[in-house]
Amino acid sequence: MNTNQKLNLTMLCDFYELTMGDGYFENGYKDRITYFDLFFRSVPDDGGFAIAAGLEQVIDYIQDLHFSKEDIDYLRERNLFSKDFLEYLASFRFTGDVFAVPEGTPVFPKEPILTVRAPAIEAQLIETYLLLAINHQSLIATKANRVVRAAQGRTVLEFGSRRAQGADAAILGARAAYIGGCHGTACTISDQMFGVKAGGTMAHSWVQMFDSQYEAFVTYCRKYPHNATLLVDTYDSLQSGVPDAIRAFNEVLRPMGITNCGIRIDSGDMTYLTKKARQMLDEAGWTDCKITVSNALDEYRIQDLLQQGACIDAFGVGERLITARSEPVFGGVYKLAAVEKENGEIIPRIKISENVAKITNPHFKKLYRLFANDTGKAIADYMCLHDEVVDDSKDLVIFDPEATWKQKTVYNFTAKELQVPVFKNGELVYERPTLAQIHEYCLQQVDTLWDEVKRFENPHTYYVDLSQKLWDIKYQLLKNKGKL
Amino acid sequence: MNTNQKLNLTMLCDFYELTMGDGYFENGYKDRITYFDLFFRSVPDDGGFAIAAGLEQVIDYIQDLHFSKEDIDYLRERNLFSKDFLEYLASFRFTGDVFAVPEGTPVFPKEPILTVRAPAIEAQLIETYLLLAINHQSLIATKANRVVRAAQGRTVLEFGSRRAQGADAAILGARAAYIGGCHGTACTISDQMFGVKAGGTMAHSWVQMFDSQYEAFVTYCRKYPHNATLLVDTYDSLQSGVPDAIRAFNEVLRPMGITNCGIRIDSGDMTYLTKKARQMLDEAGWTDCKITVSNALDEYRIQDLLQQGACIDAFGVGERLITARSEPVFGGVYKLAAVEKENGEIIPRIKISENVAKITNPHFKKLYRLFANDTGKAIADYMCLHDEVVDDSKDLVIFDPEATWKQKTVYNFTAKELQVPVFKNGELVYERPTLAQIHEYCLQQVDTLWDEVKRFENPHTYYVDLSQKLWDIKYQLLKNKGKL
Repeated sequence: MNTNQKLNLTMLCDFYELTMGDGYFENGYKDRITYFDLFFRSVPDDGGFAIAAGLEQVIDYIQDLHFSKEDIDYLRERNLFSKDFLEYLASFRFTGDVFAVPEGTPVFPKEPILTVRAPAIEAQLIETYLLLAINHQSLIATKANRVVRAAQGRTVLEFGSRRAQGADAAILGARAAYIGGCHGTACTISDQMFGVKAGGTMAHSWVQMFDSQYEAFVTYCRKYPHNATLLVDTYDSLQSGVPDAIRAFNEVLRPMGITNCGIRIDSGDMTYLTKKARQMLDEAGWTDCKITVSNALDEYRIQDLLQQGACIDAFGVGERLITARSEPVFGGVYKLAAVEKENGEIIPRIKISENVAKITNPHFKKLYRLFANDTGKAIADYMCLHDEVVDDSKDLVIFDPEATWKQKTVYNFTAKELQVPVFKNGELVYERPTLAQIHEYCLQQVDTLWDEVKRFENPHTYYVDLSQKLWDIKYQLLKNKGKL
Repeated sequence: MNTNQKLNLTMLCDFYELTMGDGYFENGYKDRITYFDLFFRSVPDDGGFAIAAGLEQVIDYIQDLHFSKEDIDYLRERNLFSKDFLEYLASFRFTGDVFAVPEGTPVFPKEPILTVRAPAIEAQLIETYLLLAINHQSLIATKANRVVRAAQGRTVLEFGSRRAQGADAAILGARAAYIGGCHGTACTISDQMFGVKAGGTMAHSWVQMFDSQYEAFVTYCRKYPHNATLLVDTYDSLQSGVPDAIRAFNEVLRPMGITNCGIRIDSGDMTYLTKKARQMLDEAGWTDCKITVSNALDEYRIQDLLQQGACIDAFGVGERLITARSEPVFGGVYKLAAVEKENGEIIPRIKISENVAKITNPHFKKLYRLFANDTGKAIADYMCLHDEVVDDSKDLVIFDPEATWKQKTVYNFTAKELQVPVFKNGELVYERPTLAQIHEYCLQQVDTLWDEVKRFENPHTYYVDLSQKLWDIKYQLLKNKGKL
């Protein structure tokens, strides 16, 4: 489901997609088949890998693509577009093919997360939404996976709606955080729409509403005896917060035989406060009481706290997760890789540019991941031409495309194609997994990566190699400034 | 208009707002009048001020507040809420008052951008959406204003949809960027919905689609002779891009007598390339040709480029604006400031906490901005109790609330109330300005600030002072841990 499903997102395109569209239309390129790759150039936070997410929203968007009468009227008023083009738009539908890496898959720079094969205008028009959907959710899923890994098995809850960059960022951000490994969210509507389990405790205002903190705590425990997590830092965590919480637990929960309860600390020094609070709770017999902390947490702060022995059972992670604060841009791009002649011949295209990092991988490609049969671990990704087949019963020599003398022979491996067909001639041919399945799949797939790739600091660069054939074509295009 | 207007955003709340709501309901606090302030604690990027934005979406949201049958069904299934509370929610509407600073107003830390006076459950339930709407758009408007100031009068276009954190972030981000001073956007739907003028040029794919760059340029000039801005960096900006553009201009535009045209450069060294390109264009007689640059720009890079004498007429600013990359969180919070007794007496509330920065300003307040009559410049903001009146015919002594010995006498000034009534008893009483009016108002209001406050590095800290009465109440609450 798409949060904006009732808003027509077809118009969420960059204006140049329409002006170029009319240009293609007028110049006989309307039906010219094009190939576009969606890929990114570097992993946020200098990480070793990213998590692909957002495909479900792309599917919804493509299925709903259409221009309403109001849209056409608006475009007509701009006095830029030909009558014939506007008529064409009035019955516009997506008729092409889409191939994509499933959500939750670890992905690496320069490999196509998604590939579109479609008539030029169609392929061009969907550029903006495809990018924003994949960029946004991949960004948050990638960040969430880092935070979850830092928490070393402890519960991580997504708490960031109020600091999200708009409603979608809150709702789909919670979805993406769950894909990346979070255990739940505070965002009610994400639970309702996607089944990301929503929960929460209390705000400072609950404590302030009552004449005393103790009264606020007792009232809450009576109301929710099985979910009593008390926020203890409204006035003073150790002087009054934890003592009042213990009194309330003793008063309400003990007679009911309930031992599961919790406190939350949202300010102050988390290492010091949680150690002291743990001690106070244990001494009072509340050894099962869970300690949740929140307040501008991220993977680095969590790592630090745990290293210092902070006594924490769960993390509420807000603004730094929902905005991916340390690097809030996932730099996915969408670039033409090939065009088709009328006879079906595929002509590769390249973008060269001054920045070497902006050079693209040309042609209609296939993407494999090579897994070692003995360990189950991922060895390398391998891009080749669409009609090449990797025979994993034989050894394969791969080489670094930027330093071709660095070669490696891969043996005893299984080659798995990473992209799956999603749309064929405009029809959905992909069976969508549930969100819970994606969450599980992501955890499994991250498990296939070596720890060296998962380090936060200076991770090992995973191999993403080109086949000899693909490399030869790329090299020729580079030498001849775009021509074969 | 709200981008999600057809999605029921009532459920976009933190789950604890509902659990607390049921708690208030069960404990007789349902009708208890509460006062909440929405404020922020520090300006992003260590700037001197922020720009308030997002009120229009808050209005739409409040007017549409309701729980559908599906929402109630979902909540019932959670097995947490009482039957009576769910019945109450089924007919839930907002019945309170809202006061807010108009969009486009420069605002400062710790002063209420928005104040809610409403029954506890209502005031609590709207917390998340109010925060996310104001946080998001204020973040982007503030960033846009910085970028626009750096560009020193040159055109700044918002180009970031594809890197936005979701559809709302793109659509409303373009709106907020326009409030902050941008001149237009690439986002078509933001033009259609809000009238933020959308435009654009061409993508690299246009150039790659044709057999030669020259052919691509000529075709574009023929199609859009009055809007011919050619992207020149697909293969090599100076070797082929600018020469091919000049040839296309000569071929198509010159015979038509058109001198207005443009080129865009999206990679490489902008200072070097724009200087060389300018020279080549001028030598070919295309002195009116505008040079637009894009590629990960922000206020710092723009400042640098202009200082180096880069020849730039317009900036396309993408990911670093639409995500406010350098500091992507606007830390607005929503805190209880007072509760009302049944007899109408207002009891101030404070949140103390361990972090001094997290201490709130209690009570139902009024916010003034003091303008010097001679210069028209803003001198200070002044918060007082709701029933205090500033008499600007007399001198006023103000003092720093964190260093009370630092005093200043303000004279010959005009005191203007910053908050205006928006809702009264749940009814909208505010006449909404148009977006163009907000854009203009923002520019004017930023003009009332001294340059010292507008510096990027180490700006002067603008005074936000408390009246003596308000300060006395705050001090007493602090000393007595929340009690008067």
